[in-house]
Amino acid sequence: MFVAKEKEIGETEVSEKDVKGVRMKILLGESQGASNFVMRVFEIEPGGHTAYHTHPWEHEVYVLEGNGAVRQDGKDHELVKGSVVLVKPNEPHQFLNKGREAFKFICVVPIV
Amino acid sequence: MFVAKEKEIGETEVSEKDVKGVRMKILLGESQGASNFVMRVFEIEPGGHTAYHTHPWEHEVYVLEGNGAVRQDGKDHELVKGSVVLVKPNEPHQFLNKGREAFKFICVVPIV
Repeated sequence: MFVAKEKEIGETEVSEKDVKGVRMKILLGESQGASNFVMRVFEIEPGGHTAYHTHPWEHEVYVLEGNGAVRQDGKDHELVKGSVVLVKPNEPHQFLNKGREAFKFICVVPIV
Repeated sequence: MFVAKEKEIGETEVSEKDVKGVRMKILLGESQGASNFVMRVFEIEPGGHTAYHTHPWEHEVYVLEGNGAVRQDGKDHELVKGSVVLVKPNEPHQFLNKGREAFKFICVVPIV
C-alpha cells in the first residue's frame, strides 16, 4: 500500500506545444506500484489551457475546484467542482480555465 | 465524450457484510463508455466504515473531504483532503470515517 498527501508530491510544468499555464502532478503511477492506470492532478492558471489534441487513450476527469470547460468540435462544456468527464480514445479535446482562480482536476489515464 | 455533474448521478447504499454507513456513486463506468477503469465516489458517514477485505484488483483513491483512515494489518494511516492511496491487488484494507463530518473519496478500479 502507498499513502501520501498531494501537497508533498512534486509538480511539473507541462511544456507541450499549445499548452499555457498548466502544472501537473503524478499522484499514483508506476513508481508507486500502479500497474493499470495512473492518477494525475492538473492545475490550470486563469487564462491557461491544455492543447486541443487527440490520442489513442481515454481520460477520466473529476473537477476539484475552479471554473473551466472542456472544448470539443468548437463547443465548450462547462465544468465546475464535482463535474466529471469521460474523454474516449481518439476524441479531440481541450481543457480551459474560464475563471479567475485556479482550475484543478484529477485526470486518470491507462498505462499504455 | 460524456460530461456530467456528480450531484446529478444517483447513489446507492453499499449493503455488503461488515459495511456501515457507506454510499457510492459510479461517476464514470461502462455505461458511460469507459472500457478500462471505473471512477466511483464513496461517502462514509461518521462512525461508518467499509469492510476489512481483500480482492485481486487495485484501488486508486483521492480524498475529497473529511477525516478518515485506511487500515491495514492493525495500523491506521490517517487520510485528509488531498490524501492519495494505492491499494495493490490482494492487499487487505478498510476505509473508516474518523471525523464528525462525511468522509468522501474517489476510488478508481479496473474493469475486471
